[in-house]
Amino acid sequence: MIITDAIKQIRQQVADLHAELPRNELVVWTAGNVSARVPGADLLVIKPSGVRYDEITADNMVVTDLEGTLVDGELSPSSDTAAHAYVYKHMPHVGGVVHTHSTYATAWSARGEAIPCVLTMIADEFGGEIPVGPFALIGDDSIGRGIVETLQGHRSPAVLMRNHGVFTIGASAKAAVKAAVLCEDVARTVHISRQLGEPVRIAQADVDALYDRYQHAYGQESTR
Amino acid sequence: MIITDAIKQIRQQVADLHAELPRNELVVWTAGNVSARVPGADLLVIKPSGVRYDEITADNMVVTDLEGTLVDGELSPSSDTAAHAYVYKHMPHVGGVVHTHSTYATAWSARGEAIPCVLTMIADEFGGEIPVGPFALIGDDSIGRGIVETLQGHRSPAVLMRNHGVFTIGASAKAAVKAAVLCEDVARTVHISRQLGEPVRIAQADVDALYDRYQHAYGQESTR
Amino acid sequence: MIITDAIKQIRQQVADLHAELPRNELVVWTAGNVSARVPGADLLVIKPSGVRYDEITADNMVVTDLEGTLVDGELSPSSDTAAHAYVYKHMPHVGGVVHTHSTYATAWSARGEAIPCVLTMIADEFGGEIPVGPFALIGDDSIGRGIVETLQGHRSPAVLMRNHGVFTIGASAKAAVKAAVLCEDVARTVHISRQLGEPVRIAQADVDALYDRYQHAYGQESTR
Amino acid sequence: MIITDAIKQIRQQVADLHAELPRNELVVWTAGNVSARVPGADLLVIKPSGVRYDEITADNMVVTDLEGTLVDGELSPSSDTAAHAYVYKHMPHVGGVVHTHSTYATAWSARGEAIPCVLTMIADEFGGEIPVGPFALIGDDSIGRGIVETLQGHRSPAVLMRNHGVFTIGASAKAAVKAAVLCEDVARTVHISRQLGEPVRIAQADVDALYDRYQHAYGQESTR
Repeated sequence: MIITDAIKQIRQQVADLHAELPRNELVVWTAGNVSARVPGADLLVIKPSGVRYDEITADNMVVTDLEGTLVDGELSPSSDTAAHAYVYKHMPHVGGVVHTHSTYATAWSARGEAIPCVLTMIADEFGGEIPVGPFALIGDDSIGRGIVETLQGHRSPAVLMRNHGVFTIGASAKAAVKAAVLCEDVARTVHISRQLGEPVRIAQADVDALYDRYQHAYGQESTR
Repeated sequence: MIITDAIKQIRQQVADLHAELPRNELVVWTAGNVSARVPGADLLVIKPSGVRYDEITADNMVVTDLEGTLVDGELSPSSDTAAHAYVYKHMPHVGGVVHTHSTYATAWSARGEAIPCVLTMIADEFGGEIPVGPFALIGDDSIGRGIVETLQGHRSPAVLMRNHGVFTIGASAKAAVKAAVLCEDVARTVHISRQLGEPVRIAQADVDALYDRYQHAYGQESTR
Repeated sequence: MIITDAIKQIRQQVADLHAELPRNELVVWTAGNVSARVPGADLLVIKPSGVRYDEITADNMVVTDLEGTLVDGELSPSSDTAAHAYVYKHMPHVGGVVHTHSTYATAWSARGEAIPCVLTMIADEFGGEIPVGPFALIGDDSIGRGIVETLQGHRSPAVLMRNHGVFTIGASAKAAVKAAVLCEDVARTVHISRQLGEPVRIAQADVDALYDRYQHAYGQESTR
Repeated sequence: MIITDAIKQIRQQVADLHAELPRNELVVWTAGNVSARVPGADLLVIKPSGVRYDEITADNMVVTDLEGTLVDGELSPSSDTAAHAYVYKHMPHVGGVVHTHSTYATAWSARGEAIPCVLTMIADEFGGEIPVGPFALIGDDSIGRGIVETLQGHRSPAVLMRNHGVFTIGASAKAAVKAAVLCEDVARTVHISRQLGEPVRIAQADVDALYDRYQHAYGQESTR
């Protein structure tokens, strides 16, 4: 009963957060998805497969277990569900996962190249470079494994999956969406900077100082 | 009588789908057009020539035969009608055709260069590289011939017509619009990736696996 | 009296056409302007100086003579008025003038480089390359002279004024706006194409055939 | 009492001006901020930390002294407040300050490279090149010092803070927002121009003539 109410609320949150993806120009057509863990249950809420962003509602979000099997909902879950489920199963501190093919981040991923830490915003949010994950086929848990292997023990909440796109994680689905938005923003800025020369690296001690301050002092205390 | 009702409905669909072109930033001014085949008749529905996107309605869409000759409607058909008609005449499985001058796809076409398959999204939707078609003058059926010669027997639903723009085909007009949206998206991402180095190719076996899965497992069963 | 009514109508047209500039992302802040000739009088209607696009109304458009001197209106005319006035005075077939600093066209102008004719859309609308005009200071008639010297006897309705921006002309203000929109679109596409290699030129005979067809056969007969 | 009324009005102005940052695509998520000096008091009005742009109201803007200490408001001030406060304390003619990570300007800053004066718009608004300020950690007054040291005695109202983003100043908050909008616009145009060659410099005498005219003759006399 408590779970039922929680799920209702999470369906709404996940539906609302999907609106951030087109608003921030991270997706086209039906690509991309946001999921959230159902706290206290081995369940997640995610977008159904092939549904347009302007058709997303709390009601058509679907619930699966941590194998990606449909538990509640009318439609088939996103074809990326296995990847999301694998992350929740193996990273217990993760409360939200986002996947996009956002243009600039995906462009770095197609070259298999990490985004270097040359902006204070990268130090703040990602704590260093944004890493590249392995190439993996879609559908089984090989994408999930690639995400977990790359992000486990890494400061960055974002991974550039080779030739594919971006996955981001967060304590909440909102935090994962924020990471997806900032990942594309810095991917674009560093790309453009490098087109006309080499951006200056930030010294490691400064990266550490920026990361530490941002994790503890940014935002309002209650919303951090 | 049945045809009349079908045409009424298709006029509405074609008018609605035109809104996707500016929404996805594929067109400027009056450029670009969507058409749909009228099932069971040698007819198509298409945008009239030189009409602005915010003036498009089901009522001002026009109906032509498969020579491009006006059959029903107040206005002159798009100057690209002959190309659309030629495709319907020679590719019976095609139910919809879209033409745009979308920026990145057209930029590849101006160099006469195919878009290489370096993203899982390209493997999914296009099944390999997106090919280039010949240079052709506008107005007669030379563009139509170029499209059919290039796409006949090719997995890709999109062709980059040299120095001109993109034509996409689909089982329905909606599928052709989707192909046009994804074509520009991958044209942009691969362009940006290549600006700073060489994107990694996806192995042919992986391209085949991705294409096969996407054609059979993506989306909801009823809408595939 | 007839002139008064005509001016009222032209103020409205000019105010409405200004909305196309931000809609097509050709301007920021208060930059850019559209003007129209008042037929049968040595007068023009233009935007006042320093007014934001969301504050533009038919009522605050201003009327000047062909020296750029204010004849009717509450506000000071655009600081580009002298350039517009000079064009109307020396090119009697021109009914509308547009000025923008649109990004890609201005980028070509900063290098003093013409946009080559490598797209059918350039052949259609501009009849060949889009030429560069001289560097000129703002305020007196030196910009106007540069525009007229460059476009006189040229097919192109657009000129890239060096280190400055674009001026376009047309039989009507709407036609000049169309030329400004298409100029930026092709400036962007050709720029992007050239970033990864050399676009293929279109043969002169094909440019001529495309230009001739487009000037006579595109659009609806009444609106051409 | 008079101060209280003034602050109420300034809170509204500052809230309204924040809407220009996303409208002009200068910011993502909660990044960026606008502040205004409270005339006749050692106070400033600024955005709170970590608040989304669509949640900004006059009521949640905060008031601090010129050390950045909260004087009035429910929320914690922006983490950039110390930098704004330092500028007001050391540059008495400054009435408004804006900070963004706008893409192209930040890309120049990551290379530590000034934007050269190759457009009449740069000469008009910035009076010459847009300079680079030092690298500085966030939180204390080192950013403020870097801004003041760079802009003191410089024509430019904008500084590119290395590896970080842009700060702009103005006689009013609106003037500082205008400088932020134009800075990104010219950063983008010059970047794009340089991608395919070297833009032509404008002679110093012409830069001076353009700057002088624009500072005295542009806009309506009352709003200059």
